[in-house]
Amino acid sequence: MTKGRLEAFSDGVVAILITILVLELKVPHGADLEALRPLLPVFLTYVLSFIYLGIYWNNHHHLLHATTRVNGRILWANLHLLFWLSLVPFTTGWMGENHFAPLPSAAYGAVLLLAAVAYTILQRAIIAEQGPGSRLAAAVGGDRKGKVSLALYLAAIPLAFVREWIADALYVAVALLWLVPDRRIEARLRE
Amino acid sequence: MTKGRLEAFSDGVVAILITILVLELKVPHGADLEALRPLLPVFLTYVLSFIYLGIYWNNHHHLLHATTRVNGRILWANLHLLFWLSLVPFTTGWMGENHFAPLPSAAYGAVLLLAAVAYTILQRAIIAEQGPGSRLAAAVGGDRKGKVSLALYLAAIPLAFVREWIADALYVAVALLWLVPDRRIEARLRE
Amino acid sequence: MTKGRLEAFSDGVVAILITILVLELKVPHGADLEALRPLLPVFLTYVLSFIYLGIYWNNHHHLLHATTRVNGRILWANLHLLFWLSLVPFTTGWMGENHFAPLPSAAYGAVLLLAAVAYTILQRAIIAEQGPGSRLAAAVGGDRKGKVSLALYLAAIPLAFVREWIADALYVAVALLWLVPDRRIEARLRE
Amino acid sequence: MTKGRLEAFSDGVVAILITILVLELKVPHGADLEALRPLLPVFLTYVLSFIYLGIYWNNHHHLLHATTRVNGRILWANLHLLFWLSLVPFTTGWMGENHFAPLPSAAYGAVLLLAAVAYTILQRAIIAEQGPGSRLAAAVGGDRKGKVSLALYLAAIPLAFVREWIADALYVAVALLWLVPDRRIEARLRE
Repeated sequence: MTKGRLEAFSDGVVAILITILVLELKVPHGADLEALRPLLPVFLTYVLSFIYLGIYWNNHHHLLHATTRVNGRILWANLHLLFWLSLVPFTTGWMGENHFAPLPSAAYGAVLLLAAVAYTILQRAIIAEQGPGSRLAAAVGGDRKGKVSLALYLAAIPLAFVREWIADALYVAVALLWLVPDRRIEARLRE
Repeated sequence: MTKGRLEAFSDGVVAILITILVLELKVPHGADLEALRPLLPVFLTYVLSFIYLGIYWNNHHHLLHATTRVNGRILWANLHLLFWLSLVPFTTGWMGENHFAPLPSAAYGAVLLLAAVAYTILQRAIIAEQGPGSRLAAAVGGDRKGKVSLALYLAAIPLAFVREWIADALYVAVALLWLVPDRRIEARLRE
Repeated sequence: MTKGRLEAFSDGVVAILITILVLELKVPHGADLEALRPLLPVFLTYVLSFIYLGIYWNNHHHLLHATTRVNGRILWANLHLLFWLSLVPFTTGWMGENHFAPLPSAAYGAVLLLAAVAYTILQRAIIAEQGPGSRLAAAVGGDRKGKVSLALYLAAIPLAFVREWIADALYVAVALLWLVPDRRIEARLRE
Repeated sequence: MTKGRLEAFSDGVVAILITILVLELKVPHGADLEALRPLLPVFLTYVLSFIYLGIYWNNHHHLLHATTRVNGRILWANLHLLFWLSLVPFTTGWMGENHFAPLPSAAYGAVLLLAAVAYTILQRAIIAEQGPGSRLAAAVGGDRKGKVSLALYLAAIPLAFVREWIADALYVAVALLWLVPDRRIEARLRE
């Protein structure tokens, strides 16, 4: 019951964020290819952020699937995650409109980093409630993928000021790392 | 459970896309009929896209109804479909604002084509999971309606540069073809 | 199952329409009372449309509660209702921005009229599926309230061009008529 | 059933309001820190309003969890609460854009006050339906926290015209007061 509403609310917020993203793709006034050209960087960041929100939705889905009880701490850890995700359309639009300039690229990474930290906190809050012997605790294990992502974000933020494409490449790399749904949890749950 | 959340998330995205569409209908400043006239092509494309999203929601509904298990591949095939649908408000606004000019009309068809391809991929991913002997596989059969739609979109895109109204007429034709909910699936499921 | 998804989708669309309405209340640049004054007619139309969408949500809720089976015709009748409701933010914004001018006031009524017609069609499609001896058919009965509403909308549209306040008063009157949830259905269902 | 739809609709509206809030954070044109500076007050009000909507969602969740029956009065009391919450993005944007000027700060508090009054009405409508001997009635008790909040809002509104920061500090104080989910209800329900 409680869990169902938590899922429904999170689904609602992510669904809206994914569609608010597309509002940054402003309809151009001209009707030729020239009119589309300035939209290309905005479109590319849109694709990247769509994939990121898709990854979060997918992993959130697996995480909650393995959850049996929900408490107040989990509710707030979840809202905290949604808060950072809600800033993704803003940094996406800023990075896209400024053609991947250093500061917007760094800001994009900072929001991803904070969302990843919030996800880790949520994961811990759920494991704390389920108990250390739970299937979820076993499935997450040392959470290597999560730690690698945090390290890559942390590296990307300063690197955006050196060569902005390095930061952008790191964001794409982390997305590829997660594009596969969290098979660890999926596999363990099947057992 | 998993399926319920997939449905809820997809419903959320489509519901938001359908209402984002209407935001393209900007409130005019004047209060007379003259002020409404430039909105007519925008309104007509709004009606067409509303029907298309309605068709996708309806067919998605029938498709998922016939689904019993959901896996990671299905989750991503579904997100891929939502990605192309999320571009419908953009191409709708572009076509409406430019009074059905060739390039926006072709772009409108290209997004519909890619959404149709994504739907076919989702359908195959679900059939692969359910097994070739499943009711869904039998209901979809050779998927003639799907193939005809793909062919009509493919024809409409170049034809938009010859006579734009031909492309627009083809989009209306495909919509009419699907306006009837997928009775094949409905009929088979009843048996 | 099917019914649950129909309700969820309709709830999503109405929830989004209700919040899109509020986007017409543009944040003013000044920080004094003068800056708020031009927003007053927009605010009043916002309140009226919020109540109308609330009434539709409430009645839709009662109608679906009394529904046991859903078919393709019901799905499309429901989408048809959502289509007209989706135009409410547009006519609300147009009427509010033009301080209840005749044509926008008439357009506001026309959209309400078409939504009411769509609701009647949906009600009939559901009764046809449930059968004439169903509790819903008995609860709706001659649908006097529905017929009076249609008549008042029909009267309000031409009257908007005579004295616009008469049309506005009629819209308020119909809203008051429905503000009470449909007790007929509620009462019959309890028996 | 009825309760599920009420929750789903409320979740939808709050999820959309929370994401509409972020639309006030307009993507700046520059790509340097200077471009971000004017966004700081808008960002701070965004954080505060996000927390307020999170608190309402959390408490609404606990309130409905303790509810077993829903009637027409509860449906409308709920819509009434959603109405005042729907104005939060407007007052947030107005206060943020005007750097916490007196009138927008007072308006922000007035909307919070009316939302709190609406919440109290909803709580009473639910207790009236559940009966005075219900667990919910016992859990809410004298509702001291609710009364303190109302008093603080009432004090903040005139104080915004004396020193605006006093009003803002009071809004932060009330948020902190509620940030902890309503443990009274949680605790009683566990017994």
